[in-house]
Amino acid sequence: MSAEPRFITLEGGEGVGKSTQLKNLHSALAARGIHCEITREPGGSEGAESIRSLLLDGDDSRWSAEAEALLFAAARADHVEKTIRPALEQGHWVLSDRFLDSSLAYQGGALGLGIERVRDIYRFACGDFLPDRTLVLALAEGGARARARDNEGSDRIGGRPEGYHQKVDLAFRLIAAEEPDRVRIVDGSGTPEEVTQRLFDNLSDLF
Amino acid sequence: MSAEPRFITLEGGEGVGKSTQLKNLHSALAARGIHCEITREPGGSEGAESIRSLLLDGDDSRWSAEAEALLFAAARADHVEKTIRPALEQGHWVLSDRFLDSSLAYQGGALGLGIERVRDIYRFACGDFLPDRTLVLALAEGGARARARDNEGSDRIGGRPEGYHQKVDLAFRLIAAEEPDRVRIVDGSGTPEEVTQRLFDNLSDLF
Repeated sequence: MSAEPRFITLEGGEGVGKSTQLKNLHSALAARGIHCEITREPGGSEGAESIRSLLLDGDDSRWSAEAEALLFAAARADHVEKTIRPALEQGHWVLSDRFLDSSLAYQGGALGLGIERVRDIYRFACGDFLPDRTLVLALAEGGARARARDNEGSDRIGGRPEGYHQKVDLAFRLIAAEEPDRVRIVDGSGTPEEVTQRLFDNLSDLF
Repeated sequence: MSAEPRFITLEGGEGVGKSTQLKNLHSALAARGIHCEITREPGGSEGAESIRSLLLDGDDSRWSAEAEALLFAAARADHVEKTIRPALEQGHWVLSDRFLDSSLAYQGGALGLGIERVRDIYRFACGDFLPDRTLVLALAEGGARARARDNEGSDRIGGRPEGYHQKVDLAFRLIAAEEPDRVRIVDGSGTPEEVTQRLFDNLSDLF
């Protein structure tokens, strides 16, 4: 019952349980006969992984907002060309841990570059290629931050201050309002099983 | 007599004698009391140098044209922010071995992305910042290639085929025609001293 291969992305701010849900969603789809290739950003191809450490290591001041957005776009162009498109062309579903909408929310919305400017850079990088569905895990304000505070060892971007991550959350909600068919906000509260079911339900029209 | 600090860039295809002329021009300016900081692209700042090896090493197929252009733009944003602007603000002249116009000619003109699309990416990276003068060393067709054939060990971009480098030359001439005040084509034939004098003469209105 695999139907046409689809490109699904999972997004969300820090502390929303994205890593757990990536695995759970992969399993839930497999149980329905849909086997996804899992990939991630920044990275997901040899070239993009070589850019990943430039983006995530070092001080926050290492790159300007513009340089950071351009590095993400370069990595994404490589990820799409070398990993995602070839997998789809071979008939495989692809599930990516973060993609375009992280750049729109983090660099566009929260770093102040503007969502539309970052979208333009994406179009230069990848043309009109887009995910078939983007699931944004979100918690009511406070919930996500409480979880995030328990996490040790944030990277260069995850370690930015509270106000930055609030803007990320708001930007994700704005993007979902702009593209309601592609982008769905999914409530991350409740048991992991409940959350996985909600994510799954938001893909059922694609089967 | 140093006057207002200026940002000068030296451009040109392979085999036109750019490295020699960079040193000669630096000396000629110093002899007139103008001490330039010399920098280069890709590179010229700590972040940009970390991107340089991604761009110049490996097979030609390592990056798509889009990824290559975005990596150059990211490196350039860092180079301008961390090296060029601070030097100018301290009152120093800056002389860069390659800059924006290499991206316009190589990725925009010769790789087929389009000069205007690459210019848009530059504006995202660096806003309205531009060199005060760009000197493009050029030889009559055939002359540059004859020299280039004698050079061993081209990097990932220099090693591209003849037709690519012809397009680079034409793109440089097109850019100079579009921006005649900023960009000057300078004849690279004759003795090194003659060429240096021509380069110098093309800066005299900036002193």
